[in-house]
Amino acid sequence: MKLYDGGRAPNPRRVQIFMKEKGIELPAQQLNLNELEHKTEEMLAKNPFATVPFLELDDGTVIAETVGICRYLESEFPQNNLFGEGSREIAVIEMWNRRMEFYFMQPVGMSFRHLHPGGAVLEGEQIADWGLKCQQSAIRAMGLIDQQLENNQYIAGDRFTIADITAIVAVQFFKPARIEVPEQGLGNFKR
Amino acid sequence: MKLYDGGRAPNPRRVQIFMKEKGIELPAQQLNLNELEHKTEEMLAKNPFATVPFLELDDGTVIAETVGICRYLESEFPQNNLFGEGSREIAVIEMWNRRMEFYFMQPVGMSFRHLHPGGAVLEGEQIADWGLKCQQSAIRAMGLIDQQLENNQYIAGDRFTIADITAIVAVQFFKPARIEVPEQGLGNFKR
Repeated sequence: MKLYDGGRAPNPRRVQIFMKEKGIELPAQQLNLNELEHKTEEMLAKNPFATVPFLELDDGTVIAETVGICRYLESEFPQNNLFGEGSREIAVIEMWNRRMEFYFMQPVGMSFRHLHPGGAVLEGEQIADWGLKCQQSAIRAMGLIDQQLENNQYIAGDRFTIADITAIVAVQFFKPARIEVPEQGLGNFKR
Repeated sequence: MKLYDGGRAPNPRRVQIFMKEKGIELPAQQLNLNELEHKTEEMLAKNPFATVPFLELDDGTVIAETVGICRYLESEFPQNNLFGEGSREIAVIEMWNRRMEFYFMQPVGMSFRHLHPGGAVLEGEQIADWGLKCQQSAIRAMGLIDQQLENNQYIAGDRFTIADITAIVAVQFFKPARIEVPEQGLGNFKR
């Protein structure tokens, strides 16, 4: 098994934190995203959607998409469960991880993609108006996260899960995404 | 258990198809999205992120997010498995379902949201340039899907899974998203 990794970018960081939490170490090759090493012919043959990170199994199967990789690792290394156990907990964690992805991490990523010069290098033409709108969405999501954390120690309830990893990585990406938390705080914003 | 449903919108349709495939019937209440019935105070108390559909369990737990709902139903009604069995298949299906979500269904949804008048009713100010870019992303994704279907009967391999449901629903949303397949076909487009 070999991990094709992407340094400090948000999705690579999610898998790195997930592995640390579970105590997993894997052979890895770093792909330099700024030099588009994930878009070479060799890498596109393995992963045509050109995402990082991705995992190559010993039989040659490629598992791409951060949560695909994490789910594979959870099955193979069940210690320190991060996806839940039993129908109800599994579904609650799935819900919260997806909320953190769709309404928090994605707008943060879009802010970077459309407002930071690095976004143009990686993804081409930028639309600043959309970037600014996504910054607002990310700030709005923080209000809903605050609301959840009023009654829960972690994002999905009373223990650390993959949903917390997603949220942490989104917050750590605020600087390149040029997002500042408003000084007056977030309030109890509803969509 | 009760489903709060949203008619013919794409995510409600994904859950409806998932349930049909598994032969599940549930008591349901339709929320009229155009009348913003999913954003009333009562519904926001249940599901502050204001998405449809969502599932309310008998103990009051709310499971929102389409794939959260489907994963709950898969655990409770394991017949006609749609998420895979064993580490490898589960991860491959997760990867393909996410590829269909992020690189196909989401751009189709964004095209609707920024180009169709209904998108403004549901989500506010539109940015047409971003809608047009998303249309192109959706068409590009179809090229990669064609590539996968050259050697596979279904999106994630040799059997029907949740990834096919996601892809089908995206295609069915082309008309409101104002996406036309180019007459010359899609070719073997790479990102």
